[in-house]
Amino acid sequence: MWGFKENDELALAARSPPDLRRVLTEERVSRFCSQAAGMQILFATERIDQSILDALFRLADQKKVIDQGRRMQEGEVVNFIQGHASERRSALHTATRGFFDGKIEGKRAREASHFSEKEIAKLRTLLPQLQKFTTIVQVGMGGSSLGPEAVYRALEFFSPSLRKVYFLSNVDPDEISKILKEVELFQTLFIIVSKSGTTLETVTNETILRDHLQRKGGQPKDQFISVTEEKTSMDDPSRYLASFYIGDYIGGRYSVTSMVGGVLLAITLGIDQYLDFLRGAHAMDQVALREKGTANLPLLGALLSLWNHNFLGYPTVAIIPYSRGLSRFPAHLQQLFMESNGKHIDREGRCLSIETSPVVWGEPGTSSQHSFFQLLHQGTSIVPLECIGFKKTQYGEDWLVGDSYSQEKLLANLIAQMIALAQGKEDSNPNREFLGNRPSHLLFAEQLTPFTLGALLSYYEHKSAFLGFLWDINSFDQEGVQLGKTLAAQMMTTFTEARQGKSSSYILGKAYVEQLMKSTISSF
Amino acid sequence: MWGFKENDELALAARSPPDLRRVLTEERVSRFCSQAAGMQILFATERIDQSILDALFRLADQKKVIDQGRRMQEGEVVNFIQGHASERRSALHTATRGFFDGKIEGKRAREASHFSEKEIAKLRTLLPQLQKFTTIVQVGMGGSSLGPEAVYRALEFFSPSLRKVYFLSNVDPDEISKILKEVELFQTLFIIVSKSGTTLETVTNETILRDHLQRKGGQPKDQFISVTEEKTSMDDPSRYLASFYIGDYIGGRYSVTSMVGGVLLAITLGIDQYLDFLRGAHAMDQVALREKGTANLPLLGALLSLWNHNFLGYPTVAIIPYSRGLSRFPAHLQQLFMESNGKHIDREGRCLSIETSPVVWGEPGTSSQHSFFQLLHQGTSIVPLECIGFKKTQYGEDWLVGDSYSQEKLLANLIAQMIALAQGKEDSNPNREFLGNRPSHLLFAEQLTPFTLGALLSYYEHKSAFLGFLWDINSFDQEGVQLGKTLAAQMMTTFTEARQGKSSSYILGKAYVEQLMKSTISSF
Repeated sequence: MWGFKENDELALAARSPPDLRRVLTEERVSRFCSQAAGMQILFATERIDQSILDALFRLADQKKVIDQGRRMQEGEVVNFIQGHASERRSALHTATRGFFDGKIEGKRAREASHFSEKEIAKLRTLLPQLQKFTTIVQVGMGGSSLGPEAVYRALEFFSPSLRKVYFLSNVDPDEISKILKEVELFQTLFIIVSKSGTTLETVTNETILRDHLQRKGGQPKDQFISVTEEKTSMDDPSRYLASFYIGDYIGGRYSVTSMVGGVLLAITLGIDQYLDFLRGAHAMDQVALREKGTANLPLLGALLSLWNHNFLGYPTVAIIPYSRGLSRFPAHLQQLFMESNGKHIDREGRCLSIETSPVVWGEPGTSSQHSFFQLLHQGTSIVPLECIGFKKTQYGEDWLVGDSYSQEKLLANLIAQMIALAQGKEDSNPNREFLGNRPSHLLFAEQLTPFTLGALLSYYEHKSAFLGFLWDINSFDQEGVQLGKTLAAQMMTTFTEARQGKSSSYILGKAYVEQLMKSTISSF
Repeated sequence: MWGFKENDELALAARSPPDLRRVLTEERVSRFCSQAAGMQILFATERIDQSILDALFRLADQKKVIDQGRRMQEGEVVNFIQGHASERRSALHTATRGFFDGKIEGKRAREASHFSEKEIAKLRTLLPQLQKFTTIVQVGMGGSSLGPEAVYRALEFFSPSLRKVYFLSNVDPDEISKILKEVELFQTLFIIVSKSGTTLETVTNETILRDHLQRKGGQPKDQFISVTEEKTSMDDPSRYLASFYIGDYIGGRYSVTSMVGGVLLAITLGIDQYLDFLRGAHAMDQVALREKGTANLPLLGALLSLWNHNFLGYPTVAIIPYSRGLSRFPAHLQQLFMESNGKHIDREGRCLSIETSPVVWGEPGTSSQHSFFQLLHQGTSIVPLECIGFKKTQYGEDWLVGDSYSQEKLLANLIAQMIALAQGKEDSNPNREFLGNRPSHLLFAEQLTPFTLGALLSYYEHKSAFLGFLWDINSFDQEGVQLGKTLAAQMMTTFTEARQGKSSSYILGKAYVEQLMKSTISSF
């Protein structure tokens, strides 16, 4: 599926990759391992050998991946399609955490970094005023909700006080009804996040919340904060307690470390924990600049994915965190990878003849071992795994039951799955036979702390960008969501017309509305 | 990929399926639509036409799918691999809700149904004693947790009192730490669910909970209930307030309507709501027996999946509920389909040359529209969608913002996505071009009630079984989880030995333990 002539070498190697049923030895475990920024990657259970690995890194050299990553971090315009109308912007999420050590290069990046520092200073000043709120509702869509939610859930253990936190994204009225039923309205801070200030779901939900609060006698201005670009309709001191800004060079799915995640994290975890989270991300940003092979962890991760997807032909990848805290992290990564790299044209607008992003999905282990792992072991399609694990628990509690502690049981299961998938097992009963040769790797760290999570988040952000560079696509726009928005507006009008008894000019939409609204659905 | 000679007809049709960019008309919307048990399927946006549909149903006839389903419901042994050691059991989940109208056929099914009725009577008698508990923790793994959680979350609106409900499955110590930190211990009822009574994670977590309660001065016997097979170690009146039974003919992923889900649902929602849920499931069980084409909704669903996966070659399927309540439903279905049909041998133990279960994944809309839908619209791989929607909200609240209500916005988005994916859009800017021809269908009902959810659950259970019959595989065992369990036990011993400073004979495991436990992970 990989169409590049210069990679005959890899295409050839893919015809007979190493047989994991035979080659998995203890020597291999310590050999195919790399570490940086407090994180290890163990990849002995991938179907690679040294020569394949070398060829993959040569391919990265040819495609100037690290150089492109460096230019991205310096603020060069990377979000574009050559010769066609496109966003033409930088992608400077790294600048939101680039101010710790003066290591940031590039004029635009330094400006953006300075901008972020100012926003953090504003936030620090406001924080004491916000301590009184016992409940936080973050209202935002896509990257303004999924990333912050995944990160907050992962770190809520570190929250010094027991605030209730809700994420409201969907326009589904049941979503907002449930929240309004549960919150103590006057103790609630609403953080409204929309870069453009016009996201349909967010604006709708904000309007409902404001009206509700007002009807109950409250003052929205005292309880609403906005996070948006400067000068949008949501940058309005007459309507918000405060507004925090993000630059146009921050894409939604890359925005967690900006004010999009920052306001919530600083309120709930404290500013120091938020800064530690940024430090971890910045540490991995530096790792992503490393020129030397496997020491550049995000590049290693990107190349392993490329090998599995484009050379071995596996259509999906599963992310399996062995950690309660990371239960929503796969959903964030699903967005990060699939929205960034679910593209079919290159950066010059030409249709690609290669496969871009696989489907990314996953659920925590060990629970998922009793669910879809049956297919992973014995199904007809092969799914590469990316497991995530930690040496220590967050809560510091553990229990000896039988001969082992729960954390040992957890890690034992993690390793056992990787070995079982790789080695398989022969059996005279065909139903107890395991074919093996299912690849996986493990990201491992000491503990799920703000620093570690920052590094992990940044690892995946760079991995996503590197894959985009390898495929020669623009990982920073999302034109694919536009058609649905246009048609949704048309459909809304059609629903309104139907309700008002007017005829609609949108024939197809009308047919759907009529079909749905038929009240004759029998209840059997 | 479909290897059956007799289906040349379908294989040929798959070479030039209908072009949805051209054929999607209002006539098609009302034509490709079917309804039963309060549910509609709208499938105009699938790449089928009447002749393909007819051929698919002929294939179902050849494979005697409805007849096999009928025999399953009557209690015939369907869980087997011919000529090899296997479970050799019935799959009688339908009997757990088969006692409403005397329509149940088959001696075994009637016995099982009677058995279920007795358990429900036991439960009804005990319920008043359980009302005092303000918190419920359901401890179980796989089907003992995912299904009940998905269903409880979907129906919690109908709960008359505000109980807190937790699901504890993972052996991750942080999971149990968080729960112990949050619950009011002496007001908590623990429902321990394990068919065998020996599931590692469940037994470990139960032991920890019992010890904890005892140390705090409580009496586990007064606060623990078990759901298990008769005569297991968990069927013990000296240790449990009560034990509820499931037959050996109930597989974990098919167990939601049995006591596995029943105890929790009856306590939280009340027995009448639980019975309504069973009534809905039973209604769809009857629909699954219908001989007449599209009127058999689960068969229609199975055939559409088969067409997309085996003939058009799409490797995954996404389930997108447009409903807050169904946020965990895709995770349950992921288990149901991938554990049931992630198999590579047929029912005589022969290696298959066709693809069985696709990867099943998904997240609620509209949120996911701003996440992975980019790939669905413009990526290089095609993902068929199964959308789920409802005419009315659960909470009965709605808001007019702009010209439309939120529920209208929700449904407008749903329909808009299906149309956009099917029709695509031409554009001179290649980045704004949509290729279209992405298939989808919609399950639609009046409201997400206990009855509707029962029907929906049963729909998917039958669809899963029908797909198994079409592929000629055993959808009711899960031998694929065994190897991991064996290796995990070995790895646990290895961890214990490492902690105790003993040397281990499991060389590969030891290499992993050493690699993970290295305390030299630099923090950069």
